[in-house]
Amino acid sequence: MTQSPHPTTKPPLLPPSDPSLAPFFAPRGVAVIGASQDPTKLGYGLARNLVQSNFQGAVHFVNPKGGSLLGQPIYTSVSLAPDPIDLAILLIPAPFVPQALYECGQRGLRAAIIGSGGFRETGTAGAALETECLRIAHAYSIRLIGPNCIGLLDTHLPMDATFLSPPGPLPGDVAFISHSGAICAAVIDWARGHSFGLSRLVSLGNQADVSETDVLASVAADPFTRVLNLYIEGINNGQRFVEQASLISRHKPIIALKVGRFASGQRAVASHTGALAGQESAYNAAFRRAGVIRAETSEEMFDWARALAWCPPPRGKAIAVLTDAGGPGVTAADALEAGGMHLAELSEATQAALQELLPPAASLHNPVDMLASASPEQYAQSLRILLDDPGVDGAMVILPPPPMYTAGAVAKAVIPVIHNAEKPVVIALMGERLIQEAVEHFRAAHVPEYRFPERAASALAVLAQRAEYLSRAGSQPSRCEVDASQAQVILQPYLDALEAQSGETPAKPPASSLLSADAARQLLAAYGIPAPVIELARSAQEAAELASQIGWPVALKLASPDFTHKSDVNGVLLNLQDEAALRRSFTQMVESTRQAYPQSEILGAYVQPMQPAGQDLILGAVQDAQFGPLVMFGSGGIEVEGLRDVAFALAPMTEEEAEYLLNNTWAGRKLRGFRSLAAADRAAVRQALLGLSQLAADFPKLAEIEINPLRAFTERQGVMAIDIRARLGKAFSS
Amino acid sequence: MTQSPHPTTKPPLLPPSDPSLAPFFAPRGVAVIGASQDPTKLGYGLARNLVQSNFQGAVHFVNPKGGSLLGQPIYTSVSLAPDPIDLAILLIPAPFVPQALYECGQRGLRAAIIGSGGFRETGTAGAALETECLRIAHAYSIRLIGPNCIGLLDTHLPMDATFLSPPGPLPGDVAFISHSGAICAAVIDWARGHSFGLSRLVSLGNQADVSETDVLASVAADPFTRVLNLYIEGINNGQRFVEQASLISRHKPIIALKVGRFASGQRAVASHTGALAGQESAYNAAFRRAGVIRAETSEEMFDWARALAWCPPPRGKAIAVLTDAGGPGVTAADALEAGGMHLAELSEATQAALQELLPPAASLHNPVDMLASASPEQYAQSLRILLDDPGVDGAMVILPPPPMYTAGAVAKAVIPVIHNAEKPVVIALMGERLIQEAVEHFRAAHVPEYRFPERAASALAVLAQRAEYLSRAGSQPSRCEVDASQAQVILQPYLDALEAQSGETPAKPPASSLLSADAARQLLAAYGIPAPVIELARSAQEAAELASQIGWPVALKLASPDFTHKSDVNGVLLNLQDEAALRRSFTQMVESTRQAYPQSEILGAYVQPMQPAGQDLILGAVQDAQFGPLVMFGSGGIEVEGLRDVAFALAPMTEEEAEYLLNNTWAGRKLRGFRSLAAADRAAVRQALLGLSQLAADFPKLAEIEINPLRAFTERQGVMAIDIRARLGKAFSS
Repeated sequence: MTQSPHPTTKPPLLPPSDPSLAPFFAPRGVAVIGASQDPTKLGYGLARNLVQSNFQGAVHFVNPKGGSLLGQPIYTSVSLAPDPIDLAILLIPAPFVPQALYECGQRGLRAAIIGSGGFRETGTAGAALETECLRIAHAYSIRLIGPNCIGLLDTHLPMDATFLSPPGPLPGDVAFISHSGAICAAVIDWARGHSFGLSRLVSLGNQADVSETDVLASVAADPFTRVLNLYIEGINNGQRFVEQASLISRHKPIIALKVGRFASGQRAVASHTGALAGQESAYNAAFRRAGVIRAETSEEMFDWARALAWCPPPRGKAIAVLTDAGGPGVTAADALEAGGMHLAELSEATQAALQELLPPAASLHNPVDMLASASPEQYAQSLRILLDDPGVDGAMVILPPPPMYTAGAVAKAVIPVIHNAEKPVVIALMGERLIQEAVEHFRAAHVPEYRFPERAASALAVLAQRAEYLSRAGSQPSRCEVDASQAQVILQPYLDALEAQSGETPAKPPASSLLSADAARQLLAAYGIPAPVIELARSAQEAAELASQIGWPVALKLASPDFTHKSDVNGVLLNLQDEAALRRSFTQMVESTRQAYPQSEILGAYVQPMQPAGQDLILGAVQDAQFGPLVMFGSGGIEVEGLRDVAFALAPMTEEEAEYLLNNTWAGRKLRGFRSLAAADRAAVRQALLGLSQLAADFPKLAEIEINPLRAFTERQGVMAIDIRARLGKAFSS
Repeated sequence: MTQSPHPTTKPPLLPPSDPSLAPFFAPRGVAVIGASQDPTKLGYGLARNLVQSNFQGAVHFVNPKGGSLLGQPIYTSVSLAPDPIDLAILLIPAPFVPQALYECGQRGLRAAIIGSGGFRETGTAGAALETECLRIAHAYSIRLIGPNCIGLLDTHLPMDATFLSPPGPLPGDVAFISHSGAICAAVIDWARGHSFGLSRLVSLGNQADVSETDVLASVAADPFTRVLNLYIEGINNGQRFVEQASLISRHKPIIALKVGRFASGQRAVASHTGALAGQESAYNAAFRRAGVIRAETSEEMFDWARALAWCPPPRGKAIAVLTDAGGPGVTAADALEAGGMHLAELSEATQAALQELLPPAASLHNPVDMLASASPEQYAQSLRILLDDPGVDGAMVILPPPPMYTAGAVAKAVIPVIHNAEKPVVIALMGERLIQEAVEHFRAAHVPEYRFPERAASALAVLAQRAEYLSRAGSQPSRCEVDASQAQVILQPYLDALEAQSGETPAKPPASSLLSADAARQLLAAYGIPAPVIELARSAQEAAELASQIGWPVALKLASPDFTHKSDVNGVLLNLQDEAALRRSFTQMVESTRQAYPQSEILGAYVQPMQPAGQDLILGAVQDAQFGPLVMFGSGGIEVEGLRDVAFALAPMTEEEAEYLLNNTWAGRKLRGFRSLAAADRAAVRQALLGLSQLAADFPKLAEIEINPLRAFTERQGVMAIDIRARLGKAFSS
């Protein structure tokens, strides 16, 4: 027996499904309100699909016109339809929906899908109608899906509660949850055309009540669902999403296609962190935390879903490529490397076994090229040999239209080998017509096949990403030794001031919400991040006195709540060696800025002791309205915005996330030293990151805090937060 | 009449086809040597394809066994087959090929395709056979395609001279030239399965004689070919490829899928430029120069080919999106922005016209969402309105399976609008079965359709890239005022030394091939790039004397041919203010290095005046064995290798290419100033780039030259080449 590469404790159980959503997924009976005899109406399509999908529960039709449909009576009101009914589906014009929903409530129904459009998506009148529906739903404890959606379906129950033209999807193991009904329609049609099965599909529409996060647990609880695919345009409660998704993704992979990334507007912020922490940074950090795999295109989402549903995760990234021609092998090698995988080095035993099997001119190195004469049996035996090599973590089999044999025969020969392997195998089946039989064999056998090696390589890379996630999932956020009560004392006056101002809606954040330089310094100190003494001088005389106490040389920094980036207005003067230089600098800095910006509030200048040289970094945190505290790490100075050498993680961070930020930025990598650049105190930087992350998590009212630069000295010499900017206030909407 | 956005002069004519290749593409008669009665043999497949493809020329079969095939006699030797024969196709075991080729030469044939494998690809014995074939071919002036290829075909002639299983591809307007026969087989089958037509296909195999570059002009000359697709694993004569491709791409787009990028090994080089100028940098620079569009995947190549063959290039990057549902519109907007395009801002007139046409709840902003009820007529009229807006450069029409109408009806309605437009329109046709009729209409009408908005957006981006290329194509390399004869004088002693050493194969480059610091300085000066005085001191005493002449403060730099990166061994000491510091530094640097590296040659140290501060850049040039002189520009210091903030262009450069390097690196962008960073003398940097580029082009023996750093001072203050490394020798094989 082989040892598991991921000897973690058993993952927590799947989160419990919300019992109030049960009627959507297992109704004893369904009422179609707006069922129609007119085949061009959606109310006809839904009635037809419910009946034709072989749904085993009761189906009742409701329409004030009465009559009959598909051999059943049409009741003129839902109140007249017999038991059992657990779910109502409304396909009537929007203005009539509130009354119908009221009748459902009276009838005792607790779940409804509003398929009709004409609500919030059409403007204010529609929004009012939607609010009215929600009010009625709340009054009767009805859970609502929609409005403006195409419904839902379950291929295993079975139940097709959509109004789309048949045929619906085949039974399968991938669920699809979508904010867009049109995408659902396209996906169902595309999946059917590719014999790709779905388990459940939920179209959420306007999400007046039930959201993508609400249904996650219910869909994951379906034993037939092995992978959850999400098409989302945004998430309302990001923290709850992360919580739910984290629990689910330990058991079942979640893939998200998140669109709308370029739609987010700009927002007024006081820090680099705020400016760079856009919607996408927060989503990426949240998805990484929750083990949600982010797809860039719809095709990727379904390519990856097949591999994740059908293949075990690999133990490593060494891949064997088996081919009968050189060109596709080269393409595959390129694509594997581009995806972070590499070609496995084959053992001597493997090469010897292949040599015995294959013609002398075959290439026994990886990619293994069996030549065009390769028989189905050679494909199968070579694949078995490769998968038996302990240095091989997975395989790609490339099958162009074979000149001598049929691709179908090769498929039949290799499928048993793949089924017996505990390693992932994907197929690059190149061509179209000559490979159709093979496509069908592989699909039936649940072996993922792709038309080109590039897409097959991408699927292997996602399997490796999944394995990597499973190995780190479940690690707990790091807790540092901090003095939270001291931090509370420092922040209290600012929190009080903020409280006093609440109710106002100022165009710019109130000045008092910005922490004084000294308060910011003390706040960081409470969380274990050292910062040099900094004192406010209101006059050149005060500055000179402070400098004498602190010790020469000193730095002088403009003290004003009105300038976000002091260096933009020459508000930082370094390395002042004596009193004459200091006095001259003070006068120049404070006076010239007062003259240039007469409207600004200039308090004076801060005096700070100069620090030894080191590597300068930026560390920051903001409160994201959706995902909560979010930490940024990267290159300081002008590089931060010029190069965008930054990375983000949700706070509080795990040790692994701190390492991820350090390893995925140039700022972090060069802490280990690079050519003539000496190594810096990387451990102290990591500790500062964890401390800042915990501070942001402990104080949700700390809207932004940024250290720029955090200077890292040589090894074991620690770090200093040289410039700090901290502001209390509201979270940022992303 | 609208004015052309690219008022350039008429492009040069297509390059002439090589007359010796004419028999491949328009033979009066073909002899199949190895024609077989056995349907499992390739020699049967080829005979069958030639006959069944309705080739109008003579077809003769040759096989020593004689007999008859497909109603025709089989001659026992090519010498017995009657006229006309212009082309022989050999499908016989490799050992018999030389004799058959000899008989072809005797028979007066001047063109042959060797389909058989068993040559260079199988090892040394096969390579010897291949060499023998080439010797015979040269002796009889026979041009050879192959060996180890699947042949060629022309769907318009028509002629199918491949041995692949039928059916062959449909007639079309995209040619395919491939180094891999398996990829040809896959592409033909895939294209047939997607009703995608090809014009010509050439499988090149081992390229014993005819290469991809040789056939470019012949394929481009085909009037039916509108786009050339290349699958290539490498290019032997890069400079000739660039020359040919540049001429062709002015008329017909070329798309290349270049694989094997991760196969290139490491090489020993003495500069950052050499280390970073890998194969891929050279290919990318060459493709950009030649207007060759580089695809990353096979799917991209054919997605793009359709758009390029069928759509006019857009005038700009403002795209209108027309949809009947919100979700796909958001996806499209994301994908367009990601591809460098943007959503067009619609004029008031356009919005008013749409308002009149569409229901009140429709979204009249871009993406225009007509809602699910959109009729074919509304699709067509809305599209016409959008294309009439002068602010719209192109359009994407999104068509999920429409709930009320058929996708086929929408296709029929919009096709005439698209045909009448002078702007590109691509279709995102979402789904599979419900859209099949629409797929067929669009394909027949030559309107590119894609299954997902992401791929449609990618096609529009490539059309914009093509338009951008056409606007810059044909610009001539910039010529600077230089003193080439002075440079020749400086280099002559080194060239002489190199000559004297030729024949030796030293493990490391001979010391004498490295230019002295002063020679390097003078060389750059001859090409208009200023560098500070630099003088070699052999002793501390000499250093002190030189510093007094040059003026304090000075920098001291280790003088040794053995250390590529001086700073790695503390070989650079800056800002030495007086004689005591200088003497101390000299002793320390020279002595400690001598002690640490007793095998190294340490000449002493260079003394150089200190320079004012500025922005530090790296400029370098190497001679690439395939593409010739190649220039690099980017961030200097440790960032060059840490961040890889570099870009490459072939030398000599055009002004446009110099701008491209400046605009596509952070080093170049920040020359204009960034926040507190002052602007630098960008014009002087560009001039230095052009000068270096010309130097590398003028002296092919200058193997590497690197300026690191080139310091750019504030505006109008010029640049200084602070550290220069130059070496003569052989070009680098990439």
